[in-house]
Amino acid sequence: MRYAVLGTGVVGRTLADELVKLGHEVRMGSRDPDSPAAGEWAEAAGPVASHGTFADAAEFGEAVISAVGGQVALAALRSVGEEPLAGKLLIDVSNPIAFEDGRLRLSPVESDSVGEQIQRAFPRTQVVKSLNTVNCTVMVSPAKVPGGHQVFVSGDDERAKERTRRLLGEFGWPADRVIDLGGIETARAVEMMLPLWFTLFQKFGHPEFNFEVRKAHRPASGGQVDRTP
Amino acid sequence: MRYAVLGTGVVGRTLADELVKLGHEVRMGSRDPDSPAAGEWAEAAGPVASHGTFADAAEFGEAVISAVGGQVALAALRSVGEEPLAGKLLIDVSNPIAFEDGRLRLSPVESDSVGEQIQRAFPRTQVVKSLNTVNCTVMVSPAKVPGGHQVFVSGDDERAKERTRRLLGEFGWPADRVIDLGGIETARAVEMMLPLWFTLFQKFGHPEFNFEVRKAHRPASGGQVDRTP
Repeated sequence: MRYAVLGTGVVGRTLADELVKLGHEVRMGSRDPDSPAAGEWAEAAGPVASHGTFADAAEFGEAVISAVGGQVALAALRSVGEEPLAGKLLIDVSNPIAFEDGRLRLSPVESDSVGEQIQRAFPRTQVVKSLNTVNCTVMVSPAKVPGGHQVFVSGDDERAKERTRRLLGEFGWPADRVIDLGGIETARAVEMMLPLWFTLFQKFGHPEFNFEVRKAHRPASGGQVDRTP
Repeated sequence: MRYAVLGTGVVGRTLADELVKLGHEVRMGSRDPDSPAAGEWAEAAGPVASHGTFADAAEFGEAVISAVGGQVALAALRSVGEEPLAGKLLIDVSNPIAFEDGRLRLSPVESDSVGEQIQRAFPRTQVVKSLNTVNCTVMVSPAKVPGGHQVFVSGDDERAKERTRRLLGEFGWPADRVIDLGGIETARAVEMMLPLWFTLFQKFGHPEFNFEVRKAHRPASGGQVDRTP
């Protein structure tokens, strides 16, 4: 497969490295066509790797991974335009992080999400939110964390979610550890996990952790439900 | 111990029942001193159970569990006043749920939390946020869900958190499954888990599930940290 990876930060480079390792062709996109980070990455990654603008990468990719920061994702994608993204799977792995006075904040939050923003702005693109709840080392090496912890997918297009599941499988996430939350509006729920993730990151001192959803298989009849936990 | 349980909904009744079962004296508080729900609960629960206004209950309790809805918690506590709550542990188990057009919303969210609101309004009370991330059946019966899933505590007072841990232990949560997130401001993080909880509740069709934080014990050196997952 030909993948576009948008973003030259540690998340983008980690995902791009893994895609190359898996035998895919990868073009890394950045705002600056002469981005040193993208150039160094492409040189180190070998002949199947290339780099260019966000638009160059998006035109190249059969599927696109948006690994730019959540607050700049829309601007990056708007610089590409609708046409090169039309009909393509776009996996958004971002969180809309805005540090304020050294304190973690999110924007948008709760009444909207980056995943929804992208889907609204690019209605002909199949947007899937995934992987934003784990550190990039865990994204591509889930076995670094013990147990049957999971990742989530949110998106309106079933085929796009199925293709995302296959890629997650290549990364090491078996199908039964990929939880389909529903439509792209459920991106709100996973983006809102970041404050807890960040609090635990500060507590543990490292990012190699994740959440495992555990559930009763046959709940007792009459389980108390009050629309609240 | 003498406990006040504020709130006559399913969460309050479930917690109050469990406290009675554990041998504690419990007074259930409600806005209406003649609340039928509280009266029926007290009658069924036997001689160590009683009921009254929020203020009656708070005066009675050596510790207070606030199990009223997150959006009305402050009003309920203000009807008590500062004095009956001064010097006491108050465990807030609420979520600030506001359904809008059938859709889950939270208020406050992200820049504030119910836990913080209560602590600011009652500076002489030791507020601990806990248990809001699980359904009330799981609060008092963690074994209903398989695995080593956890609950969180957030609060500024270490002794109050230690007392909360002991109560959680009585409910069936061993100490190593109680994660101390830090000060009361971390209540924001756990309150923001509700949208994911609710999405999973709708998917599973029952509320008997929880999250287990899994982590690597010795992260590889050079774990990629970018202040983001």
